[in-house]
Amino acid sequence: MDTSVSVLGLGAMGSALAHVLLVRGHPVTVWNRTPDKARDLVAEGAVLAGTPADAVAAGELVLLSLTDYDAVQAVLGTVADAVPGRVVVNLTTGAPDRAEQVADWARRVGADYLDGVVQAGPEQLGGPEATLLYSGSERAFVAHRRTLEQLGTTHHLGPDAGQACRYDLALLGLWYEAELAYLNALALVGGADNTALDAFATFAGRQLSHVSRATAETAREVRERRYPRGPASLVEHAPVLEQLSRLRSAAGLHHTQLVHLHEAVRRRIDRGHGTEGLTGVIEELAVPTRGAPAR
Amino acid sequence: MDTSVSVLGLGAMGSALAHVLLVRGHPVTVWNRTPDKARDLVAEGAVLAGTPADAVAAGELVLLSLTDYDAVQAVLGTVADAVPGRVVVNLTTGAPDRAEQVADWARRVGADYLDGVVQAGPEQLGGPEATLLYSGSERAFVAHRRTLEQLGTTHHLGPDAGQACRYDLALLGLWYEAELAYLNALALVGGADNTALDAFATFAGRQLSHVSRATAETAREVRERRYPRGPASLVEHAPVLEQLSRLRSAAGLHHTQLVHLHEAVRRRIDRGHGTEGLTGVIEELAVPTRGAPAR
Repeated sequence: MDTSVSVLGLGAMGSALAHVLLVRGHPVTVWNRTPDKARDLVAEGAVLAGTPADAVAAGELVLLSLTDYDAVQAVLGTVADAVPGRVVVNLTTGAPDRAEQVADWARRVGADYLDGVVQAGPEQLGGPEATLLYSGSERAFVAHRRTLEQLGTTHHLGPDAGQACRYDLALLGLWYEAELAYLNALALVGGADNTALDAFATFAGRQLSHVSRATAETAREVRERRYPRGPASLVEHAPVLEQLSRLRSAAGLHHTQLVHLHEAVRRRIDRGHGTEGLTGVIEELAVPTRGAPAR
Repeated sequence: MDTSVSVLGLGAMGSALAHVLLVRGHPVTVWNRTPDKARDLVAEGAVLAGTPADAVAAGELVLLSLTDYDAVQAVLGTVADAVPGRVVVNLTTGAPDRAEQVADWARRVGADYLDGVVQAGPEQLGGPEATLLYSGSERAFVAHRRTLEQLGTTHHLGPDAGQACRYDLALLGLWYEAELAYLNALALVGGADNTALDAFATFAGRQLSHVSRATAETAREVRERRYPRGPASLVEHAPVLEQLSRLRSAAGLHHTQLVHLHEAVRRRIDRGHGTEGLTGVIEELAVPTRGAPAR
């Protein structure tokens, strides 16, 4: 608990990060663009730094929790002299390519860099319910793992600094698309009376849990590029998808995702995979640009 | 257990229906276009009818399990004289408008009509895991509920004969879209190594279970047209959706569903609902054609 930590950026998440580390006994230095945000933390024992460079100089481990990557690059631009030998952990939300740019910068100036995302609200931080994903320097992660584990359940996703952001955005996208799928289904049965709508919600919850319970199995199929038939084969899925698209369209609802899936299923059948299961359409979803092993 | 039942159509599902009812002690008459499919059932005690009209005449309750609605209409066209006073239960898979056409026909010829869907495989029939949804004549459902309950967990969704099909297709669509959402997410993180992909599957399962656990709550919001903020407001969702769409597009992945959701969120904000939660976008998804109470 003697690793000195600096936290730059005292929004709700940054303040929570600093608070948890103070409570666990770490020496904590904080910096914020508007210093009044630091008042409570200083009362709890934090040291307020006057500049980002002073903050970086004070911590072996430097956590960034800023508004966006533009703010990250602006702040880091002022600390290049203080940063060599430090470990910078950037928990700012953003896109994978921006994380990779910061990793390049860190390499050039001689800092170890981890990019991270917090899969939790600030109030959950410090408990096991908070999941934090990191990617980038393996060495930095191993060296500071015990400190980072103070913040929640901790995973390192490999050396590619963009990967934590990519996971975060993929998981967010999954949530949005699953929500949209359910709202589409509710809109389709919208004429139902209240009792029937409650019954529908129960069936829908069960339907979604079929997908959520199979995520590991589906990931394994993707990894091994083996797509067993499962509940139905692609030649059985195709006409159902066509009918679903027609029905959705007739109801005046958006249906391009079903059309897209139907087209991917058709292409897959045309390539001779008609007896396989649905997971194989993943090979039709993407233009392979990143050399993914699954494709 | 003394209600006489006729089963027309002895595919895998029709045969399983007849088998379960025989085992539970009902007098069962069967008919199939190719009669050899009836052999095992006759050995179990079923009576084989020579024509659909003979089969209909023999059963108080007439179950149809045919290839499609074209087959249903062809078969019913030959039984109009036998059908008055009978209860016809059509478990053939199809679209709501076809179910409503058959209901109209039944009204004209003097039969009670239920349209049903089986949410299970043939092998699950007769157990509590098999869910059967019915809509149409309430009187027929009440009169034959105990017989229908032999087949599995049983729900009546109201007098609109198309509603059971609509539920079935909405639930199927939900499964397809949730699967597609997960495959999109896997494609996005595809560059990950195996350990990281397994971790992703775990996170994804958790993410989907957030949606599946909230289906009843979300349905209640839709019914009451009250959309509390939840984890984030629409003005907070909008930039995230924009970023997700950009990232998905940059990865060469299909992203029209996220663009569509983003547009619906923007419209909703423009109409003054920016502080509300995501569920309210349901009001932007559909052209209201069926007078749904939720819209």
